Amino acid sequence: MCREVGARHVQVQLIQYTPEPERTVAAAARLCYAPIDAIQLLEQLSAAQIERLLRQVIRSGHHSVLEHASFTFAIGGISRVTSHQLVRHRLASYSQQSQRYVSYERIEYVTPPAIAGDPSLLTRYETAMAAAHELYVDLQQAGVAGEDARYVLPNATATNLVVSMNARELRHFLTVRCCNRAQWEIRGLAHAMRRAVLAVAPVLFDDAGPACWRGPCPEGHLSCGAPPPRD
Amino acid sequence: MCREVGARHVQVQLIQYTPEPERTVAAAARLCYAPIDAIQLLEQLSAAQIERLLRQVIRSGHHSVLEHASFTFAIGGISRVTSHQLVRHRLASYSQQSQRYVSYERIEYVTPPAIAGDPSLLTRYETAMAAAHELYVDLQQAGVAGEDARYVLPNATATNLVVSMNARELRHFLTVRCCNRAQWEIRGLAHAMRRAVLAVAPVLFDDAGPACWRGPCPEGHLSCGAPPPRD
Amino acid sequence: MCREVGARHVQVQLIQYTPEPERTVAAAARLCYAPIDAIQLLEQLSAAQIERLLRQVIRSGHHSVLEHASFTFAIGGISRVTSHQLVRHRLASYSQQSQRYVSYERIEYVTPPAIAGDPSLLTRYETAMAAAHELYVDLQQAGVAGEDARYVLPNATATNLVVSMNARELRHFLTVRCCNRAQWEIRGLAHAMRRAVLAVAPVLFDDAGPACWRGPCPEGHLSCGAPPPRD
Amino acid sequence: MCREVGARHVQVQLIQYTPEPERTVAAAARLCYAPIDAIQLLEQLSAAQIERLLRQVIRSGHHSVLEHASFTFAIGGISRVTSHQLVRHRLASYSQQSQRYVSYERIEYVTPPAIAGDPSLLTRYETAMAAAHELYVDLQQAGVAGEDARYVLPNATATNLVVSMNARELRHFLTVRCCNRAQWEIRGLAHAMRRAVLAVAPVLFDDAGPACWRGPCPEGHLSCGAPPPRD
Repeated sequence: MCREVGARHVQVQLIQYTPEPERTVAAAARLCYAPIDAIQLLEQLSAAQIERLLRQVIRSGHHSVLEHASFTFAIGGISRVTSHQLVRHRLASYSQQSQRYVSYERIEYVTPPAIAGDPSLLTRYETAMAAAHELYVDLQQAGVAGEDARYVLPNATATNLVVSMNARELRHFLTVRCCNRAQWEIRGLAHAMRRAVLAVAPVLFDDAGPACWRGPCPEGHLSCGAPPPRD
Repeated sequence: MCREVGARHVQVQLIQYTPEPERTVAAAARLCYAPIDAIQLLEQLSAAQIERLLRQVIRSGHHSVLEHASFTFAIGGISRVTSHQLVRHRLASYSQQSQRYVSYERIEYVTPPAIAGDPSLLTRYETAMAAAHELYVDLQQAGVAGEDARYVLPNATATNLVVSMNARELRHFLTVRCCNRAQWEIRGLAHAMRRAVLAVAPVLFDDAGPACWRGPCPEGHLSCGAPPPRD
Repeated sequence: MCREVGARHVQVQLIQYTPEPERTVAAAARLCYAPIDAIQLLEQLSAAQIERLLRQVIRSGHHSVLEHASFTFAIGGISRVTSHQLVRHRLASYSQQSQRYVSYERIEYVTPPAIAGDPSLLTRYETAMAAAHELYVDLQQAGVAGEDARYVLPNATATNLVVSMNARELRHFLTVRCCNRAQWEIRGLAHAMRRAVLAVAPVLFDDAGPACWRGPCPEGHLSCGAPPPRD
Repeated sequence: MCREVGARHVQVQLIQYTPEPERTVAAAARLCYAPIDAIQLLEQLSAAQIERLLRQVIRSGHHSVLEHASFTFAIGGISRVTSHQLVRHRLASYSQQSQRYVSYERIEYVTPPAIAGDPSLLTRYETAMAAAHELYVDLQQAGVAGEDARYVLPNATATNLVVSMNARELRHFLTVRCCNRAQWEIRGLAHAMRRAVLAVAPVLFDDAGPACWRGPCPEGHLSCGAPPPRD
C-alpha cells in the first residue's frame, strides 16, 4: 500500500443530458395551454418559437415544465466539506464514491486558497494531510476496517460523485450556490456546472445564477460588494 | 364552437430519454465502489460489463443509481380518473393540459370496457357524454368561464400529459400499476410505458412489472388468479 | 340504494399539528448557528426570542428549518377539479377518499358561484348533477363496478381528503393558491387553511399568502386589480 | 480560545411529534375506504380499531397514510461520517450545526470501537484528534476563516442535528439502518431512534427494523449471521 497524497482541483463534466432539452421543455409547455395532442407535440417547433416559449415560462415562474430536462454530471476533486453541502439539495440524485468500500491507496485533498497562499500555513496543512493519510493506512494495516479507519481522514479529502438534476432544481442550485456568499469551493463547482449546461441549453440557463443577476439581492443589499461577473 | 364528442384510447410515446441509459447507470454504479475518477468513468464499459453491473445493482436493492436515467413520455387519451391516479406518484414531473385554459371545441372521452361491451349501457353512456359536452358549451356561451364550465365534464374526459420519471421511480410505478389489481385503465397505460422503455433499456426493465414477476405476491397470495403475461 | 344528490361547501379542519410549532422551528434554527447541544436545545426560549428567530429565518429565506413543523388537515367538500389541483403539490402527504372503493349512495357536488348566481343555469346544472348520479347508480345496478361507473361522475363531485404539509411547503402553497389569480375554489380552500394555521402559529404564518403581501406581484403588475384583503 | 478536545457518544431525543400519531394515521386510513366526512373522522376510534386499521395498512403495503405522523429528533454526538450518510435520506428534514459559522472552542469526536478497544491505536487516534484541533485553532488565529480552517478537521468530528421524518420514511430508514450490515455508528443511531418512537407509537413501529424481522433477508441469506435482537 503506497502512501501517496496529492492536491486536487474540482473537475466537472456533463456526461449525459436529455437530448434537445430546450425543445423538450418547450413542447411540454405548449401542451399545457393548447388543445394539442401527443402526436402534434412532436411536430416542428422553430428555434424562435422554442426560445419565446422558454422565456415566457421562466419569466412567469411556472417552472414545473423545466423538470423534463435532466442533466447528469461527473464531479471529481471536491472536498467532503462540499459533497456534504451538495447532497443537502434533496431534489437531485447522487452516486458518491463510498469511503466505506474504497480503501484509498492514494488520498487526494482540496486546499483552501487562504491556506494555499501562505507558504508557512500551507506547509503545516500538507504535513497534516500526510499525517492523516499515514495514520489511515497504519490503522488498516493494524486490522481496522476501512470504514473505521476513515474517521481520521480530514474534511479536505477529495471525493467523486455522479449527480443528476433537472433544469428546475439546477436553476435553484445555481441561484443559491453561484452567489458570492456561498463558500468558495461549492461556488466554484456551481459556476463550472453552469458553464457546462450553458453550452448545451443557452436559453434555459442564460439568466441562471445568483438572484442579483435577475433582480434585487435577497439579502436586501449587495453585502458581497458586487454581483459575480457573468463571464 | 362545434360540439364534437369522440371516443378515445390511450397513446404513449417515449419522446425523450437519457442517452445510453444503461451505460450511464452502470458508470454511476461503478463509481460508488471503485477508486476511479470522473475521467475514467467515461472509458469504455463493455455491454457485458454493463449488464452485469445493472443486474447486480437491481438484485441488491441499491436502486439509487437508477435515478440517473430519466424517461419522458407524451401520454394522450387517458381519462381524468387515470390522470388523477397518475399524478399521485410524487417523484415524477408532470405537465398536464389545463382544463382551465383550454376551451375544448372537441371533447374526447374514455369508455370502460365493461360499458363498451354492453350496447344498451354504451348508448346511455354516449348520450351522457354528449349531454355533458353540450351543457359545457352552453355554459360558456352564456358567459361562464371555461374553468367553471368544466365542473360539468365527466371523469371520463380525456386529457394529455407529458410525464418524466427516472428509472427507479418508473420501476416502482410499473410494480404497482402493472399489477392485475390496478384499475384496467392505468394498468394499460403502465404496460404501454413498459413496452416503450423496454425497447431502449432492456436490462433496466426486463424484470420491471408486478411484484409477482420477481417473487411472491405482496398480498400473500395471487388474489387475481395468475400473473399478467410478460408481453 | 338511494339517489340523493346534494350541494356542498368546503370544510377545513386542522386536526393535528406539531406541538409548539414555533418553538420547535426556533430551536432548530438556533442549533444551526450556535455551538449548543441537543440537551440545551430544549431549554427555555422566551416568546420574544422565538419570534425574533422566526422573523429572521423567514426574512433571510433560509426556510428549511420551517420543515420541522407539520400540519394535518381534514378537508371536505371540495370538487375533483380542486383535489386534482391540490395533489399536484408533491411535497405533501395525501389520503383521499377513493372513488374506486366507495360506492356513493349520496353524491355531493360543488357549484361554481358563476352558475349558482344564475337561476336558469343553476337549474340546468342541478339537473345534470342528478342525471349523472342516476346513471352512476343505474350502471352499478346493471353490474358495472363502482370504479367504472364513476367515469360518468362530473368534475364537480365532492371529495374528502386528509392532507399534511410542513410549514415551508404550506407557505409556498399559500403563496400560489391565496393569489387572486388562483381559481376561486382552491383559493377559498387555501384561505381557510391559512386561517386555521394562523390561529396556532401566528408568527410562522402572518405574512404567508400571496406574494403581493410581501413584495411586488410576480406577474410584474397587479393584473388582478388589488391584493386580497388579509382577513 | 481554549483547545479542548473530548470523546463523544450519540444522544437521541424525540423532541416533538404529531400528537396521537396512531389515531391520526388510522383516521386517514379510514377516510380512504369509507364514505365518511371530515367531521366524522374526528369521532372516537377505539384503541382496538386503531390497532386493527394500522396493522392492516402496514401489512397491505399501502404506506402513504403513515406519512401523516411526523417525528422530530434532536441528535447529538454523531460523527460527520454518519451525518453525511444520514442526510442522504432525502425524504426528511434536517437542520445541522454549521461548521461554517460555528467556531468551535471545544471539539468533540467519535471513536470507532475497533480503535477504542486497542490502547495503542487509541493513543495514536487521540493524538491525531488533538493535533487536528490544534491546527484548526492555529489556522484561525493566523486569520483563516472558520469555514476554511475546518478542512483539517477529521471525519470523526461530532455534530448535532435536528431531524424530522414521517412514519413512512422512518420505517424505511429503520429497515435500512438497523440492519447488521449498516455501519455500527448509524446503526446505533437508528436503534436509538427506534426505541424513542416505539415508546410513543408501539403499533406503528413494533415491526419496524431490519427486513429480516418481517421476512427473508433481502440479500437472499443472512450474511451477517443472525438478525439483531429486538430488545
